[in-house]
Formats: sequence, structure tokens, C-alpha cells
Amino acid sequence: MTAIQSELDLSDMARGAVFLGAGGGGDPYVGELFVRGQFDRGHIPKIIDVDALADEAFVVSIAGVGAPTVLVENLISERALLELARRTETFHNRKIDALISIEMGGVNSMFPLGLGARLGVPVIDADGMGRAFPHLQMTSFSVYGKRSSPLLLLDDLGSLITIDVQDDRQAEELVRLNTVALGAMLNGAFYPMSGADVKRTAVRGTITQTLQIGRCIRQARLASVDPVASLVETLNCAGDGRQARQLFSGKIADVTHETRDGWHWGRVSVVDTNRDILTVDIQNEYIVARRDGRTVTVVPDIIAILDRESAEPLTGEMLRYGQRVAVLGYAAPDIMRRPEGLAVFGPRKFGLEEDFLGVEALVPS
Amino acid sequence: MTAIQSELDLSDMARGAVFLGAGGGGDPYVGELFVRGQFDRGHIPKIIDVDALADEAFVVSIAGVGAPTVLVENLISERALLELARRTETFHNRKIDALISIEMGGVNSMFPLGLGARLGVPVIDADGMGRAFPHLQMTSFSVYGKRSSPLLLLDDLGSLITIDVQDDRQAEELVRLNTVALGAMLNGAFYPMSGADVKRTAVRGTITQTLQIGRCIRQARLASVDPVASLVETLNCAGDGRQARQLFSGKIADVTHETRDGWHWGRVSVVDTNRDILTVDIQNEYIVARRDGRTVTVVPDIIAILDRESAEPLTGEMLRYGQRVAVLGYAAPDIMRRPEGLAVFGPRKFGLEEDFLGVEALVPS
Repeated sequence: MTAIQSELDLSDMARGAVFLGAGGGGDPYVGELFVRGQFDRGHIPKIIDVDALADEAFVVSIAGVGAPTVLVENLISERALLELARRTETFHNRKIDALISIEMGGVNSMFPLGLGARLGVPVIDADGMGRAFPHLQMTSFSVYGKRSSPLLLLDDLGSLITIDVQDDRQAEELVRLNTVALGAMLNGAFYPMSGADVKRTAVRGTITQTLQIGRCIRQARLASVDPVASLVETLNCAGDGRQARQLFSGKIADVTHETRDGWHWGRVSVVDTNRDILTVDIQNEYIVARRDGRTVTVVPDIIAILDRESAEPLTGEMLRYGQRVAVLGYAAPDIMRRPEGLAVFGPRKFGLEEDFLGVEALVPS
Repeated sequence: MTAIQSELDLSDMARGAVFLGAGGGGDPYVGELFVRGQFDRGHIPKIIDVDALADEAFVVSIAGVGAPTVLVENLISERALLELARRTETFHNRKIDALISIEMGGVNSMFPLGLGARLGVPVIDADGMGRAFPHLQMTSFSVYGKRSSPLLLLDDLGSLITIDVQDDRQAEELVRLNTVALGAMLNGAFYPMSGADVKRTAVRGTITQTLQIGRCIRQARLASVDPVASLVETLNCAGDGRQARQLFSGKIADVTHETRDGWHWGRVSVVDTNRDILTVDIQNEYIVARRDGRTVTVVPDIIAILDRESAEPLTGEMLRYGQRVAVLGYAAPDIMRRPEGLAVFGPRKFGLEEDFLGVEALVPS
């Protein structure tokens, strides 16, 4: 079982969450600050394994919603999160037994840790994506039959909206609409479910993984070995069969950003000394990497862009012209690669004209 | 106390509701059919005076929301209304003691009568406007301190959205947004309040008034007297101090209709034999009547357009080129004419560049 024993562990986790976040999920520092504040006051997050959960436990996902570029400008309000937890318990007429992250990404993986610590409620070592994704319905929870609603949205002024619809795509649309109307940044309580549901639908072990990834990068730096190579080796040797590849190394030659319809769109081009080019398309997250036009990693597999020297993972907003970066491809967990999942968050759902192929097939070792 | 004793009473009420509806509120026949269906099965609406209500009674407004042009195409679903009532009681954890209309208009004045009859719950002889208006916050309830939320929206598929915000203008915006997203026509439960709140904030006696107006027109036709003149006389002699004026009589020379942002906009021009012109501007309801450019009646006072011969009141959608019509101005109830009310539904709130003046001042007798 993973335990957080120091603030160093929190920094490692935040770093690992940015890696898994695949470019999305917002500035991790905002999330880290929130958990650190709880930690300093003696509220230590308690992380439990999926199997430690009672089948009849009541579990909910608490997350911030809105464009990451908005999130960056808003510090997390403890008061608003506590009020959301209180309203969630009133609405469902159940005490919350455990929290689960909807996604692993810079901020939303940290929310439940901080709130759980403050409430004295454990956080489950799992999430609904094993990464970050831009849409509410793009979760293993939804793919395997759990609805995101009834869900609650609460803003800092105490405005509350609840939504209860059958279809998670419609829920996503309504959440987006109401978020924009209420001021572009809210907290929400999604995917109310039982412990048995979590066991059946969640992507397991992902908090532990953020800690391992973040720690691996930090320790490689201290040991003066190449942290990028070290991370790739660690991921390949984890024993879960998931493959990682270093796709490219070079300098950012061009990066475009656009915030449209509340989402972050863009493309980054990286050039190496041979004049080869790797491009990464962004739809909140990095969705496809192409080397000289040929796809080398595509959703739901994870694309990570790291600072070349320190292996610090970079979100889409952090990318700048001239940065020296390494680009990695990393296989998604098996539960996220099945046909029923690809029908919801595969390449075609992002407007790409290709079927999914795993990074290990696209880039043989 | 007003009682409905026959289907004739229902027709009279529907006719009177179109008159008070000031051109808005949708096709009354849809509402009449719904109540008639209940009546035929022995579910007789029970109408009670405001003063008969217990101070601690739980009262709510059930209404259809969406553009009237959409409403016309959707028959009222009894099943959906019953489900809304059930969900409302669950949400508020209170049994509904009485229903009240949010507005007097073709359809929304009939909803509570039919639903109340079906549920065995009385309907209060009052409403929140004494007429119809296009926006949720344009009620005496809101002006005198009762919020429209927490409110529920339910569609025919069972999708439920609840909204709880402090400001009724924001509630209006959110209701509109979610109504469009869910399919343009929903039922809602608004303005949860106590009997004491109703006594303090409601426009009283308005169901009785719809019956009186509808009956007056019918009886004048039977007696072969001019039903328009008869109605004006009846309104002026009601003893409540509210004045009515016949503003114009002529033929519709032009009528424009446009459905924009879910609302009905338009203008109708009426010409008489002297070539004088009266125009009426429409924003769902008739908002201002001008004779040769000079204002003769303006919101919140009521403008009614009647068939010249039968005095049948016409909604905005019923107006056609060549129709012979009479146009009436009728003073709003005192509770709707005070400065705090005019700040919410006076002329400037409809984009008009004039202050309110009552019809009795604009058109001295």
C-alpha cells in the first residue's frame, strides 16, 4: 500500500501526475500546494487499495471542471470543496466512504488527496482514465456501465446545479454549458458508485504509479544518470507488460495555442539535429505524435513531453519555442485499450482518421 | 370562492387566460384539453383563496418552459407532470400542499389546474404576474423576495436538472440554456415557498378573473351585444380600480414574426378607416401599443388583441394579415405597478426608452 510520508512524496506524485496527464490536467503546482497545505496542518492523505474497499461503500469523484487555462488562475478553495462534499452527502443521503480521482492529471489527481485528508476519508489508489482526458464520458467507469450522474456542480458563490441524465455524452455537454454560464470554473461531484462498481470499472494502482514515476525521475537526477532513459527503463521493467518508448529528442521549433469553446487546442513541432520532425497535436491533452508524418503514439496511449535534461514532465501550457525536450510514448493500461473503450476515447473520437495501434506495435523496440 | 362546475367554465377560463396572457403563454387549447381530460375522468380542480392557505403550507409553481411555438407542437404529458411532482417532493423532502401558477397565460395557467386535479392538491386563486411575461424573474414572487430556486427541470425522457442560485436573472439564463440543451421543451417546478410567502407576494384572484373575463365574452355573444364593449365595461366596473380602454379597432395591415434565441419577436400593425395606425410590439407577449407613434399602453399593463366580432382573445401566433381586430389596454394590478416591480419588468427591461405610465393616464376616458 502506498503511503505519503513526506512533502517530497507529494512533489514526486505531482510530477508523476503531470507525466500521466499527457499534457493536460492543469498546473500541478496548484494541486500540490493544496495537498501540502493539508499535510502541514497534520491532515495526511490516506490511500487505500481497491481491494480494501467494502463492496457497499459509497464512492464519489470530486474534480475541478473548466479549461485548464482558467484553472491555473484560480487557487483551489478548501471551503468550496468542503461545501461540495457536504452537499453531495445531503443530495445522495449517504456519507462518503472514499474518494476516487476521475483522472490522473496535474490537478484533478491532487484534489481528492487534499479533500480526503481534510475530511478524514480515504482516497482509492485508482482512477477512471489512468491518464487525463478532455471529456467527462471518457472514463473506464462510463465504458463499463457506471453513469457520471446524478452529478453536482458547485461554484464559489454557493450556486448549485445537479444533473441526472442517462447518457454521459449529454452529461458532458450539460456540464460544459453550465460551467461556462456560472463562470468557467467549478467543482463537481461525479460518478457516484459502490465499492463493487470501483472494483469492476476502475484503472487500478494509478496513485502508486504517480509516486513511482516522480520518484524515479528525482532519484535519477540525484544519481547523475540520464533521467529520461532511466524513466523509460523503469516503466518497461515494471512487470505490468506496458511498454514505453523514447519517441524523439530535439528542440521545439513551433508551438501553437488556442483556447476555443473552453478547450485548449494546439500543435507542437520538435526538430532534431538530423532535421527530422516530430509533431504532437493537442486537444487539452497530447492526442497523437507523428514522426515525419508517421504516427508513433496515439490516444489512449500516453504521450509525454519532458524537459530533455531534467525529465520534468511538461503540460501543454508549459511548452515554449526553443525548449529542448524528449517525447515519450507509453502504453495505456489494458482496461483502456479494449474495443468498448476505444469506441469512446479512441483516435476517431478526437477526429483522427486512423484506428488505434499500441505504441509497442508502432515503434518496435 | 371560485369553483369549476362544467366544461363550459373551463372554456371560459382558457379564453380569459389568453386575454390576461397579453399575447403570450402559448395555445390555450393545449392546456384546456389537458384539464378537460382530467375533468372527464372525475378529477375536478379545487381552487382555494390565498387566505385559506395555512402559513406553513408548502407551495410550488409547476410550469412548462420553452418557446410557445414549440409548446404548441407538444401535447402536455400527464406522466411527465406526475413524475415532476414526485421528484419535487423528493427533492424538497416535503409533500406539496398546493400549486400556484407562475403566470396567467394560455397554457401555464392551465397546467396547475390539471395537475392539481390529478394529484388531489388544490390550486391557489393567484399567480406571480397577473398576466404572462417572457422571463422567469419577472414575477411578484421574485420582486418581493422569494427566489425561483431551488428549481427542478424535467424532460419527457426523465432527465432531471436542478438549479439553486441566489439571483433569479441567473436562474432564468440557466433555465433557458438547459432547456435548449435538453430539447427546447421541459416542465419545471419553480418558486418553492410557504403559504405565508404566497400571502405576501402573490397577485390575488387571477384564476377567478380568467373565469369572469371568459364568461363575460361568452354571455355578451349570446345576448347579441357587442362583446368588446361589454368586456371593457365589465373590467371598468369590477370595483378593483383597474381601468380598461379600447385603444383601437381596425384591420391587420402587417404582421412580422421571428423566433430568435428561443423567443418570439414581432410587430403587428393595425389600420382603421381613417388611415390611423396602431402598432403593437411583441417579445413573446405584447409589450407596447403605439397609436400613430404615441404610446397608449405599455408593460406591465396588459395589451389584448381580440377578434373584432367575437371578442376572442388572440395570441401573437394567431395574428394574420387582414384580420379585423380590437385592441384593448388594461391596467396591471397595483402590486405589479410599484417601483420595485417596474425595475424588473417595466418598459426599460424590454429595451424601450420610456418610463411606465398607466393606461388610464395615457388614454384618459
